[in-house]
Amino acid sequence: MNKSILDYETVELDDENNALVIIDQTKLPSMTEIVNLKTAEEIWDAIYLLKVRGAPAIGVAAAVGIYLLAKKIETDDYETFYQEFCKQKEYLNSSRPTAVNLSWALNRMEQVCVANRDKTVAEIKELLKKEAILIKEEDIQVCKSIGEYGLSLLKKGDGILTHCNAGQLATCKYGTATAPIYLGLERGYNFRVFADETRPLLQGARLTAYELHSAGVDVTLICDNMSATVMRNGWVNAVFVGCDRVAANGDVANKIGTSVVATVAKRYNVPFYVCAPTSTIDMNTPTGADITIEQRPDHEVTEMWYKERMAPEGVKVFNPAFDVTDHDLISGIVTEYGIARAPYTESLKEIFKNK
Amino acid sequence: MNKSILDYETVELDDENNALVIIDQTKLPSMTEIVNLKTAEEIWDAIYLLKVRGAPAIGVAAAVGIYLLAKKIETDDYETFYQEFCKQKEYLNSSRPTAVNLSWALNRMEQVCVANRDKTVAEIKELLKKEAILIKEEDIQVCKSIGEYGLSLLKKGDGILTHCNAGQLATCKYGTATAPIYLGLERGYNFRVFADETRPLLQGARLTAYELHSAGVDVTLICDNMSATVMRNGWVNAVFVGCDRVAANGDVANKIGTSVVATVAKRYNVPFYVCAPTSTIDMNTPTGADITIEQRPDHEVTEMWYKERMAPEGVKVFNPAFDVTDHDLISGIVTEYGIARAPYTESLKEIFKNK
Repeated sequence: MNKSILDYETVELDDENNALVIIDQTKLPSMTEIVNLKTAEEIWDAIYLLKVRGAPAIGVAAAVGIYLLAKKIETDDYETFYQEFCKQKEYLNSSRPTAVNLSWALNRMEQVCVANRDKTVAEIKELLKKEAILIKEEDIQVCKSIGEYGLSLLKKGDGILTHCNAGQLATCKYGTATAPIYLGLERGYNFRVFADETRPLLQGARLTAYELHSAGVDVTLICDNMSATVMRNGWVNAVFVGCDRVAANGDVANKIGTSVVATVAKRYNVPFYVCAPTSTIDMNTPTGADITIEQRPDHEVTEMWYKERMAPEGVKVFNPAFDVTDHDLISGIVTEYGIARAPYTESLKEIFKNK
Repeated sequence: MNKSILDYETVELDDENNALVIIDQTKLPSMTEIVNLKTAEEIWDAIYLLKVRGAPAIGVAAAVGIYLLAKKIETDDYETFYQEFCKQKEYLNSSRPTAVNLSWALNRMEQVCVANRDKTVAEIKELLKKEAILIKEEDIQVCKSIGEYGLSLLKKGDGILTHCNAGQLATCKYGTATAPIYLGLERGYNFRVFADETRPLLQGARLTAYELHSAGVDVTLICDNMSATVMRNGWVNAVFVGCDRVAANGDVANKIGTSVVATVAKRYNVPFYVCAPTSTIDMNTPTGADITIEQRPDHEVTEMWYKERMAPEGVKVFNPAFDVTDHDLISGIVTEYGIARAPYTESLKEIFKNK
């Protein structure tokens, strides 16, 4: 076994060596390879090729990355500096144009330049470093807070089922759905975790099972179609999943299969919790029906592990990346400011008031 | 695309060439290879290596196989013949000792010998041929009858979801869950079928998608965790699955994931039908809780396609081969003698009375 995932941070700044340090997630679970990224091209590739993935982790990687690139700009003139900064920013932003956290983090970094244009370039570089570190610390705090609220819903020895990877690897530390599990590990809760493998891209098998196992959590890998059996056997006390977007009525878009787990959990009276940083709650989206579901390529389903074909040539494939879980299946939405309960139309508004 | 599956029978007797003719299912879906089996070793291997699979198909293959082996016994003396017959029978029976249909078919063939011991060996050989053909014809009739009853539950243009392979490849012709689909194809029903890939062994992707696609059925392959999405989209009018065992109260053991589909179907008000030859209904098993679920090896889950590992070394795996679907999730059990409806404790008894 390698070192524990908890010995790493998913994204780190090595300022002395001018490097963005990440775990190359494309090599997992076979190899835990730490990569130092120094050039704009290396950072761009890492995001594009999913070496770093998960919305919060991408945001932090971009913030640290643009700081390192800004640091290398050799000028004392603000306009020259800002022009070059924007060029680098646009370049990084093109690595995964649909990832909201990527542009959000880069814009926040740009604002540091704009708001401090009266300062020296050296001072601005220092402020950019602080902002990148702040973005990262905020991510860790959000995850930790979600973990504390999540842990309040659990008791020692509980069985927890999770789907896909809303783990440390998708954030800087703790993850979202896994945050209560890691906090519980620190505090001797002895959880037993079931990780859905999560077809077609197997993030549960490759990433969640990997990170929990490496951290010493009691984790059992199952196929997605085994959730009913483990719940029927009485092995699951709660389901925790992450999310990509929460609508104003509490409907949740998350990795394909999430709503299947929620439906099965309802049948077996297992509470189903969604871990959602408030950044993922979109009060401008009225319901799940208003969320567009990304369709992905057939070969993810028909060619196992991108190598050998295991479906007949020419067969049609339906491959939605996400699904919508209706709010009536959700026992609670765990945010960094507290837990929202039904009716979500009211409780989500309250969460934002407490913010 | 190859020839249609409907141009083949899964198991055939080529008496002139002394061959048992099968489609090698281990080569599917990449290659449709027809294999002629002549020796006892070839037949044993084909069953052991799952070149022929599916309880009914195995039974017929064994019946045809033991006939061909009996035909080769060169003696006119009944005792010598019978002794050699039993030796061959035990050998074939050892190929998959837990497959009920295998020993059932072989015992039925042995009874032909015993009941006709006063006849000449040549006459017995002829009767064995008739019995093997009868076993096969009965299987086809059972499937066809299930297909007719199943078709009565559907209307033109319906969307049908199925799980695993209860198809022609598991029987001699028509299959069980697929029988209404094939009959519908002959009669212009234009069904749209969704095939669950069925992890971990992917019988849905490899076999069901293959056979339906080759026959010209409009089939779409999905991952097991996408059933809620296709039902939510209103694309599914009925679910049809096969089964391994039906308990007296209507609980059904079938391929892992079946009960997940049933639970999701209930939520979306999609009727869920189980196709069950009466040979699979076990009135001596009171409920699903009395059915022992086979556990299978970890590597089926952790090593995709038996080659590359995609889960961390050392992680625990839970890999049940089957699950139990509670009778309250089942809209009807379709047998060759009619459709049983709740309360199943009564209706299944009625089915046997009509037999």
